Amino acid sequence: MKHVEGGICAVRGIKANGIKQGKNGLAIMVADARRLCASGVFTRNKVIAAPLIITREALSKGDLKAIIANSGCANAFTGKKGIEDAKWMAGLLAKKLQCNTEEIGVASTGVIGRYLDKAWLSGHFDEVYNSLSGSKEAAAACARAIMTTDTTMKEVAIELDNGVRIAGIAKGSGMIEPNMGTMLAFLFTDAALSRKALDACLKKAIDKSFNMIVVDGDTSTNDIALLTATGYNECNLKTFQDGLDHVCISLAKMIAKDGEGATRLIEVRVSGARTEADAKAAAKAIVRSPLVKTAIYGKDPNWGRVVAAAGYSGADVDQDRISLKFSGNNKEAVLVDSGTIIEGKLDELKSIMESKEILIEVDLGIGENGATAWGCDLTYDYVKINAMYTT
Amino acid sequence: MKHVEGGICAVRGIKANGIKQGKNGLAIMVADARRLCASGVFTRNKVIAAPLIITREALSKGDLKAIIANSGCANAFTGKKGIEDAKWMAGLLAKKLQCNTEEIGVASTGVIGRYLDKAWLSGHFDEVYNSLSGSKEAAAACARAIMTTDTTMKEVAIELDNGVRIAGIAKGSGMIEPNMGTMLAFLFTDAALSRKALDACLKKAIDKSFNMIVVDGDTSTNDIALLTATGYNECNLKTFQDGLDHVCISLAKMIAKDGEGATRLIEVRVSGARTEADAKAAAKAIVRSPLVKTAIYGKDPNWGRVVAAAGYSGADVDQDRISLKFSGNNKEAVLVDSGTIIEGKLDELKSIMESKEILIEVDLGIGENGATAWGCDLTYDYVKINAMYTT
Repeated sequence: MKHVEGGICAVRGIKANGIKQGKNGLAIMVADARRLCASGVFTRNKVIAAPLIITREALSKGDLKAIIANSGCANAFTGKKGIEDAKWMAGLLAKKLQCNTEEIGVASTGVIGRYLDKAWLSGHFDEVYNSLSGSKEAAAACARAIMTTDTTMKEVAIELDNGVRIAGIAKGSGMIEPNMGTMLAFLFTDAALSRKALDACLKKAIDKSFNMIVVDGDTSTNDIALLTATGYNECNLKTFQDGLDHVCISLAKMIAKDGEGATRLIEVRVSGARTEADAKAAAKAIVRSPLVKTAIYGKDPNWGRVVAAAGYSGADVDQDRISLKFSGNNKEAVLVDSGTIIEGKLDELKSIMESKEILIEVDLGIGENGATAWGCDLTYDYVKINAMYTT
Repeated sequence: MKHVEGGICAVRGIKANGIKQGKNGLAIMVADARRLCASGVFTRNKVIAAPLIITREALSKGDLKAIIANSGCANAFTGKKGIEDAKWMAGLLAKKLQCNTEEIGVASTGVIGRYLDKAWLSGHFDEVYNSLSGSKEAAAACARAIMTTDTTMKEVAIELDNGVRIAGIAKGSGMIEPNMGTMLAFLFTDAALSRKALDACLKKAIDKSFNMIVVDGDTSTNDIALLTATGYNECNLKTFQDGLDHVCISLAKMIAKDGEGATRLIEVRVSGARTEADAKAAAKAIVRSPLVKTAIYGKDPNWGRVVAAAGYSGADVDQDRISLKFSGNNKEAVLVDSGTIIEGKLDELKSIMESKEILIEVDLGIGENGATAWGCDLTYDYVKINAMYTT
């Protein structure tokens, strides 16, 4: 497996383009496939955005030939008009491609409870569509077009040892606690796989990547991940799954690191849990805790908050068997060994907290299961960004 | 029912005192009862502090004659030494009162994973004990002694129409998402009630007060509520329950309003839910949401976040039947009526957001159940306080 250039356009058959102008953005991705196959995963929020409703329905009927996405407006909680607007977006692209609107996937991200700015979208559609290409610049323009409060563009492209390529772009910075879906993630591969195989691989990859990151614990109304396969290359399932996991975990970590206002990436590895569900619950409770997140921002060696979060996570916990280690900047500090506090480590811990990437390892000491979650610190800038989001 | 002066010492038979010095504090409460009865509720965090372990055990054997509490150190995650230290605290008071250590309740609040400062506690014990009194000043000193990042003292005392009095003090500002227990709350009444009655009343009152507030979603290791009855007055259960509910809700709202760094009290009333559990889940998800909390801090009329939080709360939600109203400063704005956005209300909403107390009413429109939750905004100061808590 190696990283390659070109973003999503590194995958054979994919053309893309995008434009970003102030808060508004428009992205288009088109698949020229030998044997088209697509899969999707959607938010579990019961308030689900209009574009997701129509895309889910489209996927239930067949594969997606192309995707149109906008940023600036989530088209969520917009009722029947929202559904019509999302279909109108699909229609713009379907007309050009001379296909059915149900072969187009639609996604949106931005403010909830506002109607789409159709004038802006129709005013810029031709400009984006007419310059669709397979260049890395076009792929990057597409990745940038879906950004909102993101400060970095998020794209990954890999080539497996058998020549198959898998690539993806994602956006996400706040309202991040994906639950089954993700923020926006568009994944592509030139592998030839069945719908059933794609569905299973996508679900597995998401469970250990996007579903294991938390920025603020708010599950979006607009989380969506779409995986499109253009079918040019054969690929065995295990090899494909490993590659897809790698792409999804890379994108998920980029999102956690670029959490709104974040200055640090936090990785939490829980081991020794009674069940895998317990390991996941404990890891996510720790990366979700505002008290852990603010302590890391302030480099305050207040490690007791990590143990407290594990304790309320719902996971089985025996406080006399917990071990705790922090690492960063090529240093490590064991704070607790099987329930016993190792004293005199606070200065070491403070120095570890200077690191831009902090690893917290918690061994619950009562089982054989583990899980890894990613998050970021909670800073003044998170508050600032979100206190003035629509104004 | 009327409010009376005197804090917890307004209750016949209660003497109290306390001292606060920097981060350390010591509080003592003693009940001189005609017919003593006590009840307690504890955190559900599986990492449970040493003082709670011994107090829970003491309550299982009999009633509590007195309570000793300290601030500055939580004595949590401190293993066997922590248990010994908590028993030592109980012993200090038991010796003076010439009673068994198992008649003393112990509570602690402060940093987790540190040992008690026994030198400071024993150095100040006599000073506090020797000035125990039934004055309102002593009651206030006791309430102040348990404060940590709290900026206001939290005490309430009421007299029911039948002359029975109920009073309580509480502390809590961060690490607030009580689950079955609460932060520290010490409640007293001169009513004569059985243990069974006290237990039932306390559980009911806590379920609609302390269990319905969220500052940051972190459930503490040290949450405890103790209710002591001195038995001087007869009281019917319904009257007592109403009074106890009032005292607990008053204290809970004080805690929410004094949330770390908070500038605004948020009250969320959910109605029209399929079940009471759904109503509670939706109300708590909304007051817990960092995005709702930051929007209110910034007076950003981003009401879509309220609907998104209801959607991921786990409650049954039909987005086409939700209604939403904000009130404050004697104004109100209906943003959504049965799933339909009422446009042109954003300026009104911005002006409502200037209010120090904001009421958010969400009617889910699919059932007959309701619940109310309280919280506060998320501000720069929350981050600041928690980024530098132990340093």
